[in-house]
Amino acid sequence: MNDKVYIFDTTLRDGEQVPGCQLNTREKIEVALALEELGVDIIEAGFPISSPGDFASIVEISKAVSEPVICALTRAKKEDIDVAVESLKFAKRKRIHTGIGASDMHIKHKFNSTREDVLERGVWAVQYAKQFVEDIEFYAEDAGRADLPFLAQMVEAVIAAGATVVNIPDTTGYTLPWDYGQKIKYLRENVKNINKAIISVHCHNDLGLATANSIAGVMNGARQIECTINGIGERAGNTSLEEVVMIMKSHKELDLNTGINSKRIYPVSRLVSRLMRMRVQPNKAIVGDNAFAHSSGIHQDGFLKHRETYEVIDPHDVGVDNSKIVLTARSGRAALKHRMENLGYFISKDELDEIYKDYLVLADEVKVVNDDHLGVLYQKIETKKEKAGIKANI
Amino acid sequence: MNDKVYIFDTTLRDGEQVPGCQLNTREKIEVALALEELGVDIIEAGFPISSPGDFASIVEISKAVSEPVICALTRAKKEDIDVAVESLKFAKRKRIHTGIGASDMHIKHKFNSTREDVLERGVWAVQYAKQFVEDIEFYAEDAGRADLPFLAQMVEAVIAAGATVVNIPDTTGYTLPWDYGQKIKYLRENVKNINKAIISVHCHNDLGLATANSIAGVMNGARQIECTINGIGERAGNTSLEEVVMIMKSHKELDLNTGINSKRIYPVSRLVSRLMRMRVQPNKAIVGDNAFAHSSGIHQDGFLKHRETYEVIDPHDVGVDNSKIVLTARSGRAALKHRMENLGYFISKDELDEIYKDYLVLADEVKVVNDDHLGVLYQKIETKKEKAGIKANI
Repeated sequence: MNDKVYIFDTTLRDGEQVPGCQLNTREKIEVALALEELGVDIIEAGFPISSPGDFASIVEISKAVSEPVICALTRAKKEDIDVAVESLKFAKRKRIHTGIGASDMHIKHKFNSTREDVLERGVWAVQYAKQFVEDIEFYAEDAGRADLPFLAQMVEAVIAAGATVVNIPDTTGYTLPWDYGQKIKYLRENVKNINKAIISVHCHNDLGLATANSIAGVMNGARQIECTINGIGERAGNTSLEEVVMIMKSHKELDLNTGINSKRIYPVSRLVSRLMRMRVQPNKAIVGDNAFAHSSGIHQDGFLKHRETYEVIDPHDVGVDNSKIVLTARSGRAALKHRMENLGYFISKDELDEIYKDYLVLADEVKVVNDDHLGVLYQKIETKKEKAGIKANI
Repeated sequence: MNDKVYIFDTTLRDGEQVPGCQLNTREKIEVALALEELGVDIIEAGFPISSPGDFASIVEISKAVSEPVICALTRAKKEDIDVAVESLKFAKRKRIHTGIGASDMHIKHKFNSTREDVLERGVWAVQYAKQFVEDIEFYAEDAGRADLPFLAQMVEAVIAAGATVVNIPDTTGYTLPWDYGQKIKYLRENVKNINKAIISVHCHNDLGLATANSIAGVMNGARQIECTINGIGERAGNTSLEEVVMIMKSHKELDLNTGINSKRIYPVSRLVSRLMRMRVQPNKAIVGDNAFAHSSGIHQDGFLKHRETYEVIDPHDVGVDNSKIVLTARSGRAALKHRMENLGYFISKDELDEIYKDYLVLADEVKVVNDDHLGVLYQKIETKKEKAGIKANI
């Protein structure tokens, strides 16, 4: 048992399309490297036909990242797929994510089309993409509101055409977990060739149910979750990576595991929040400032008597630094790097060496180095990076 | 069918105990009046023995509010209940919320006690409180991790002792919706006198599942949800009022309704965020700044073709003002009040008259009055209110 659930991170695609969250190529590479270290299985790096910047970012991320599969989004169109294939040419492991609307609402109002037509276009897109890339994921847009027998027919057809992963998105975030789980179960039971593909869940949080829906999906046989750091994304956002990962980690009875190094969750959360300028509210699960804070007298009392009385996740397991190490001129590089990552400042070994020199001068002067000081120290590295410009702001 | 689910708001109790969220009595009255207008059934106004400020606030809220039941929290102790009874003396409708730990973890580590002993103390507390107040709610703390047969025994005993509502909290936020729903179902099926009381759900969001757990509860027979505005509360917070209410409103097949005037949701969200200095993240469901924003090209296209393609809740239904009315010297009092409430500034009729005079002078000068201007106008009212001081900062 103990099945692996693949973590498909779409922070750089579904997350990044939020107004105000746009990153330049250099910043996207920084996030992609942090996601690699976090242990995500797939990085959806962009929608290459949408802009030259997206295209260039996928190229550069493909060069920079080794382990995770790099995925590019397309519509079921030749030009989209051609551009995606081109954008992925340097990727060590690659995937194309193509698809089309599956609900009558989308088929009629968005595509002004028929079920037969979208089915045919979906199959065609998979077959076409498959000539260039082996790993093809198909999304059945608005699957949450699609007619189930038609959805099953579509899924069966695209798997037969070569899809390796089938994504069943709850595009509007409207579905209840019990219904969403039933849909996944129905597909497992009614699609003959379902064992030839992995079922993926992609949920939105419009009603606050994205996490529960994703868990309902994997409890019913899905084995990939599409999610973002801090649950960012359009409208109310996507499924939060940190929530689904920690649910699977803490609920052993689910017999599911991921390749995520949970101790990297908090630093990556800070990095994404900082670069995308999207604040995490203090009461956000797992990564909010208050997530592990106990304040009321009753709770503090119980907490002090026995930690498990109130807390089910050890903050250290998600990389939250509660130790409050005081940074002085005696602190070493490791302590400095650790603290900076907890503030969302990711630095390479060379950058650490450089920053450490400035740090020692500052520490002699101010005695205790605080978070604001670290922000100033980092600024120097940031400015230098911008000047070097790994094709920044293309 | 179409059962009513009671909305028990604990923004002023479980929400307010978060560090940095403390309100003075005047502010608490402002929130309580806004909650009354929102249509909540029960306002948990505080934990009166915890501080003189909490006690005074319950007294003043009891005087100010007419419709909702005013509820005061206690432990299963005589002194707590005596103080609660005293604090509620001016309430038109009142409830005492008492209880004790139900899980072995809490019984052993927090109370250093036995199942028999906590059961006896719980029954005693209900009986004692019942002498003074008819409506008694009992909480079985950490019910999420309690032994089910023991929990059923406890619930049956406290109902026999006079409890009108039994609260089954998932204190640590650890339970999965399927398990939580089963617990509620078990109680409905195994507690003989369960029909003499309302089952209440009180969930925490540590794993991002508070909303799903609350809905699982009402789907299995609970008829009260304890929640807070914006989901504020200790650690990762409580169930979000706005999420559970809009799920029940938009999912007609659940056959559940609430007394909430959903158009007041957004203004109350702003008020609480402003007074408690707790930012709502942009991607928060229902009340976040981006909750109804569409940005990506694909989505915008579909959205423009047919609103329902991507959106399941009409922003107007939750009081979000997308109309972008331009405020000028020709705008009336109603437009001014509407816009101010959308910014979280709640003003009485008299205050509106007063502010409107300043508004007209300003509008003549600046032509178009923006949100920053309104903040400045409100400041004058706020300062005046503070000087008048309805026992502020007791």
